[in-house]
Amino acid sequence: MSLLIQQLIEKFQILPGVGPRTAKRFVYHILERNQNAALDLSATLTKAIQSIEKCSLCRNLTESPVCNICQDHRRDPEKICILESPQDVDSIEQTGCYKGYYFILHGKLSPLDGLGPQELGLDNLFSRIMDPSNTVKEIIIATNATVEGEATAYYISEQLSSSVQITRLASGIPRGGEIEYLDPYTLTHSFQTRQQLESTDH
Amino acid sequence: MSLLIQQLIEKFQILPGVGPRTAKRFVYHILERNQNAALDLSATLTKAIQSIEKCSLCRNLTESPVCNICQDHRRDPEKICILESPQDVDSIEQTGCYKGYYFILHGKLSPLDGLGPQELGLDNLFSRIMDPSNTVKEIIIATNATVEGEATAYYISEQLSSSVQITRLASGIPRGGEIEYLDPYTLTHSFQTRQQLESTDH
Repeated sequence: MSLLIQQLIEKFQILPGVGPRTAKRFVYHILERNQNAALDLSATLTKAIQSIEKCSLCRNLTESPVCNICQDHRRDPEKICILESPQDVDSIEQTGCYKGYYFILHGKLSPLDGLGPQELGLDNLFSRIMDPSNTVKEIIIATNATVEGEATAYYISEQLSSSVQITRLASGIPRGGEIEYLDPYTLTHSFQTRQQLESTDH
Repeated sequence: MSLLIQQLIEKFQILPGVGPRTAKRFVYHILERNQNAALDLSATLTKAIQSIEKCSLCRNLTESPVCNICQDHRRDPEKICILESPQDVDSIEQTGCYKGYYFILHGKLSPLDGLGPQELGLDNLFSRIMDPSNTVKEIIIATNATVEGEATAYYISEQLSSSVQITRLASGIPRGGEIEYLDPYTLTHSFQTRQQLESTDH
């Protein structure tokens, strides 16, 4: 096998879930059938890496200094939703249920990995919220419902609860889920955070 | 989502087996964690597409005018093995069982797709074999054991059988295979091409 082909197969393995066999399939497919499209992919990839940065307001990935969402003045300026990753923004935008702004941590608090409040951009966010001219009335913490996600949520809420209202996405049985198949942690949590059913006639 | 990110996700879908979800995973992984490696991938990809061509002798993919295998004079000059694709070369080289040269068709005869003897490079191969100065004594046809692969093998054998010995890879029950689970075509073929067992005492 040509040295360059071997190198290309190796480099394709930086992609998540791509091992030697898949990488080889990619490389031969490109070389045998799809050279122009692959040149195009390569150019777009270089351009994206060179021009995509974090939005200066919400830290979402964008090729302009301020992202589309932060530029959209029809959104609700009283709400900021805090997320772990840019993919989470896409998931929430797809539902259409939320019209406020976002703030992306790009991770979660993890002192052992050197990820503190500063690395997650929280210092800047906190000073923005503390600023008297700020319009934010509610911070919706939507970090993942994992141990680290909960710890991060707790830290943020400790810092901000005296300044704004803090909410957290509800956690419990997924809609359509059956109790028989639910894991014990979710079930316990659902019991502990059970809610009063509102009566329909009042 | 940024326009550039959307474009990149789309372009990753030229890879075989990569749909929108996988492409999105690739893109965010690269942008969040692996920018330098991805720049490297992009550069290698462009370089490979620009410099990899078919070897002028065997039509294998290579970045030099003549590939490593055709340049290796320790190989057996009396044998040429005909294959459908460059991947097949890798598979055979890995076994270490063959030390002759190769010839790669990059496809199989398929008049409906416009693939005739000329497109597969067979015209050149035939004139090379017919040349009185040629050293080739055996052509091993190793096209796939599919209908088109067999048709291609038959055509090559028709053209060359008066000039050199033509052989075809044995087809039958895979080593370790069980008759109970064999498909009827392979089983029929194995019956029809059954071989005399040599006696051990002679």
